[in-house]
Amino acid sequence: MATPGGNEKLKVGILIFDNVEVLDFTGPFEVFSRTRTEAGVQARRSEDSAPFQVFTVAHLPDPISATGNLRVVPDYDFTTAPQIDILVVPGGVGTQPLLDHEETISWIQKTAPTAKLVASVCTGSLLLAKAGLLEGRSATTHWASLDTLSQFKNVIVDRKLRWVEDGDVITSAGVAAGIDMAFHVVERICGKEVADETAFYIEYPRRLATDPRST
Amino acid sequence: MATPGGNEKLKVGILIFDNVEVLDFTGPFEVFSRTRTEAGVQARRSEDSAPFQVFTVAHLPDPISATGNLRVVPDYDFTTAPQIDILVVPGGVGTQPLLDHEETISWIQKTAPTAKLVASVCTGSLLLAKAGLLEGRSATTHWASLDTLSQFKNVIVDRKLRWVEDGDVITSAGVAAGIDMAFHVVERICGKEVADETAFYIEYPRRLATDPRST
Repeated sequence: MATPGGNEKLKVGILIFDNVEVLDFTGPFEVFSRTRTEAGVQARRSEDSAPFQVFTVAHLPDPISATGNLRVVPDYDFTTAPQIDILVVPGGVGTQPLLDHEETISWIQKTAPTAKLVASVCTGSLLLAKAGLLEGRSATTHWASLDTLSQFKNVIVDRKLRWVEDGDVITSAGVAAGIDMAFHVVERICGKEVADETAFYIEYPRRLATDPRST
Repeated sequence: MATPGGNEKLKVGILIFDNVEVLDFTGPFEVFSRTRTEAGVQARRSEDSAPFQVFTVAHLPDPISATGNLRVVPDYDFTTAPQIDILVVPGGVGTQPLLDHEETISWIQKTAPTAKLVASVCTGSLLLAKAGLLEGRSATTHWASLDTLSQFKNVIVDRKLRWVEDGDVITSAGVAAGIDMAFHVVERICGKEVADETAFYIEYPRRLATDPRST
């Protein structure tokens, strides 16, 4: 996947839903939306050197309530969302009812094959597993859901890494690990210099996949 | 300030506005809203042991557009917001026009005196300075705005710490440093064990005020 230039921005679609964990989706949103291929503060004041176009997608057009009741208006619903290059599926308590929500699972199944990359944060990996996207792959999830993930057929569960990359499917550990995973995706697509400069911009010392998952 | 118990939750009011930096306000929102005095996953499924009640406040009741065009519906506007115990003022490009926005500066001036604690993230400290809340105090801001902050009268600018605590006013460095600052506030109010357990829950290895601001 080449670094996009000019107007060819990669489309990052982030799924949101009721009781999605706030940092699960806003961490990657921040990282992808503030990345610039040109360094510095001034570059953040326009979209000119932004390699990604980031938007949220929900089942319906109405505002969703994230954990703590943060209300977010989705940019698109399942019927209006444009083609997605990087699909981000966050987690949270709200994933539990979605495991039985046919529209959501089939939207993921329909969206993933044309995406260049599918990434999950936290228990978002359970939705990927349910959609059959983790069969035969290594993956991880929030520490409290590792056993649940291991109950899906043919998923090789990793309990130690902050994120697990298996080809074009990347799953991350709980909540904050999604920020590190997003920076890894930026590095994979735009190079280490761009990822590091964006981390510097948001004053975030990056962590490696092998860094401890929790204190 | 004693740890609140039962129904006496501390009210955390987070100011939001157009072009507020996403992680500036969602980082502290995540930390305060997911803190529980009771450990574990199950405790996160209810508000019973939540020491904080977190909400967003905007000038007007309409949705605001954060950086990257994340659209958020505020819980309250300036006329409907309840009394606030912990006032959080985030930053972002959107602080620049607000420095000359009389309603916002006077709302901060009116809200701060009855709050137990005032905290800013990133360039949110410029709004506190404009409101006169940093006079005679040590403070910090995003690395690119340190010189701007030093132009306010009687503000002692710290260029090294990830957050600066001066009595009941705490200012943090750029964007992601607000997460560390929020955990510090949780520790100050609820103790280290509660703050550490919440960091463990969201798989976030906490950083100290003296840890490097950027990579």
